Amino acid sequence: IQKEVLQNQSHKRFNILTGEWILVSPHRTKRPWQGQQEKTAADVRPSYDKDCYLCPGNTRANGEVNPEYTDTYSFTNDFAALQTDNAPFAINDGLLRAESEQGTCRVICFSPDHSKSLADMDTEAIVKVVSLWQEEYHSLGHKKDINYVQIFENKGAVMGCSNPHPHGQIWAQSSIPNEVGKKDERQKAYYTANGKSLLGEYVRQESSNKERIVYENDDMVVLVPFWAVWPFETMIVPKKQQAHIGQLSETERISFADALHFITATYDKVFDCSFPYSAGIHQAPTDGKDYDHWHWHMSFYPPLLRSATVKKFMVGYEMFAMPQRDITAETAAQRLRELA
Amino acid sequence: IQKEVLQNQSHKRFNILTGEWILVSPHRTKRPWQGQQEKTAADVRPSYDKDCYLCPGNTRANGEVNPEYTDTYSFTNDFAALQTDNAPFAINDGLLRAESEQGTCRVICFSPDHSKSLADMDTEAIVKVVSLWQEEYHSLGHKKDINYVQIFENKGAVMGCSNPHPHGQIWAQSSIPNEVGKKDERQKAYYTANGKSLLGEYVRQESSNKERIVYENDDMVVLVPFWAVWPFETMIVPKKQQAHIGQLSETERISFADALHFITATYDKVFDCSFPYSAGIHQAPTDGKDYDHWHWHMSFYPPLLRSATVKKFMVGYEMFAMPQRDITAETAAQRLRELA
Ligand SMILES: O=P(O)(O)O[C@H]1O[C@H](CO)[C@@H](O)[C@H](O)[C@H]1O
Ligand SMILES: O=P(O)(O)O[C@H]1O[C@H](CO)[C@@H](O)[C@H](O)[C@H]1O
Repeated sequence: IQKEVLQNQSHKRFNILTGEWILVSPHRTKRPWQGQQEKTAADVRPSYDKDCYLCPGNTRANGEVNPEYTDTYSFTNDFAALQTDNAPFAINDGLLRAESEQGTCRVICFSPDHSKSLADMDTEAIVKVVSLWQEEYHSLGHKKDINYVQIFENKGAVMGCSNPHPHGQIWAQSSIPNEVGKKDERQKAYYTANGKSLLGEYVRQESSNKERIVYENDDMVVLVPFWAVWPFETMIVPKKQQAHIGQLSETERISFADALHFITATYDKVFDCSFPYSAGIHQAPTDGKDYDHWHWHMSFYPPLLRSATVKKFMVGYEMFAMPQRDITAETAAQRLRELA
Repeated sequence: IQKEVLQNQSHKRFNILTGEWILVSPHRTKRPWQGQQEKTAADVRPSYDKDCYLCPGNTRANGEVNPEYTDTYSFTNDFAALQTDNAPFAINDGLLRAESEQGTCRVICFSPDHSKSLADMDTEAIVKVVSLWQEEYHSLGHKKDINYVQIFENKGAVMGCSNPHPHGQIWAQSSIPNEVGKKDERQKAYYTANGKSLLGEYVRQESSNKERIVYENDDMVVLVPFWAVWPFETMIVPKKQQAHIGQLSETERISFADALHFITATYDKVFDCSFPYSAGIHQAPTDGKDYDHWHWHMSFYPPLLRSATVKKFMVGYEMFAMPQRDITAETAAQRLRELA
């Protein structure tokens, strides 16, 4: 009965990691759509584009020349949103509060091949991306004033990506960002009360019924979280608790790359297009405090809902009230399993 | 010195209403944009469109016929995301938590004229919209199981609006939504500690220097909040504390309509286009509890940043870490004042 009710009635679900609720309206997909249609990426790209500032050998905006790199390549963003060596300040003027923020922004090229995306790179090539993320997490995390390292990728023009060359970004900064703070709090509370990792227990519970599990290998699970917001949102979670990706062994790194290959390739089959998303890794801060309660994970937030050109808009109600989704997590998981 | 530092260095600002931080990167507007360009609305619309399901006299998806209304008109959404008369349930299964949600969704037509938007309606016509919002807030708020009434508008295809006929929506539900809960908490804490309204004090502070104030009349202030997220975000706040719009007197209703007219018309001048946004009113819940600490306000979240076709994407970093903006609140306020 419970299962059926979740597929038919409007209800809310609780996100155990952030402590926030989301509204689910499973009956709503019958609604016709007369709104905005996105362009599909005219996607036969050349392997090399002389005007791309990420291709090997090309000159960037600031005059620097990219090396003739053969797998991955990272550098500091020429237009970084975060700056190092800012004069520290704190304003506390009545109800106005502001503080200086130190940080740096890095660009991570996944491949020298302009035409590729993670979805069409093999596991071996993706392992190199994972290794680079590990290195960056370590080296940035050890810098003075860097207390959190946010690894992410915006894929597709519809997700604000301004260059189709396969790449992600890292913004590393002195503050613990809002979203990370929420997850830190909930994980800590659970770990303190139960002596176990919140996400570890969650994965165990999901594994007993598999309704929302999309894929697994020896070390990783790919699932649609019970509280998913985006239509085909998924999460890669290591089965063994680890606070950050720096702890991945060589085999675990391969398992992670395999999971990344699986989910990105499967996404491309959903609407037979290069599937846009924002993806990000949430993991332990690097401020040297105790983060034994952290269980790192990588989330994918893809906007497409009905077709390659119709996305879910998180606007009015979602901005002012709470996130709302139209298909259930279970329907999404089933669809992804069938396509795999 | 403090003022200068805020216009030149990356920093974070604190939102006193939600308790969350936002990242400001004032130096970042120099970044060139090669990403997605939005279509501008081909905006000479007829006053009547026979295919529009909101125009007077037309037949809607469910077979109902709209009356020949002459000013405003409201009805229950034919594809409502919220349902009434759901069987109540609560699932508490290990780490899975879900609860039934009761509610209803209303469509609020602002004008019978298909070609209009709030920006080109006069104050007299907007007063009728405000009156309808008041009525809806009252009648919905008095319904069983309706504890919060979210009034909002999505304007423009880029904000997920699927019909250009001037209209807004109301989603009313049994739960207090996340965003409202955050603002409730902060306002209550301040009111309890200081015996005054948080927003009232904030408006008083802003009024002493006017850097972020865009417009005011006898009863209302329009300002860019210190912690604004969206490029030209603004907020309409009543000078006198009121918990909800039901408390507006007849003159205050006119002042509110005047402020609405001012800000929507000014927005259209920013990039010389019908300026898209999501707007929403945050006010006291309707669950009958004590909300003396509430100070209602209406916020506008417009996405355009650089031109009529280039918007700010809240993606990767913003989704996983915290909101980030490229121009400061002060720059935005100045621009809006100059255009007025
Ligand atoms: O009901 P509409 O206007 O068609 O739909 C729009 O507003 C809703 C409420 O903000 C959103 O959930 C939808 O994603 C959006 O497209
Ligand atoms: O740096 P990019 O990829 O050009 O920019 C993109 O990602 C950033 C980080 O998520 C966002 O702040 C921008 O709005 C988006 O367009």
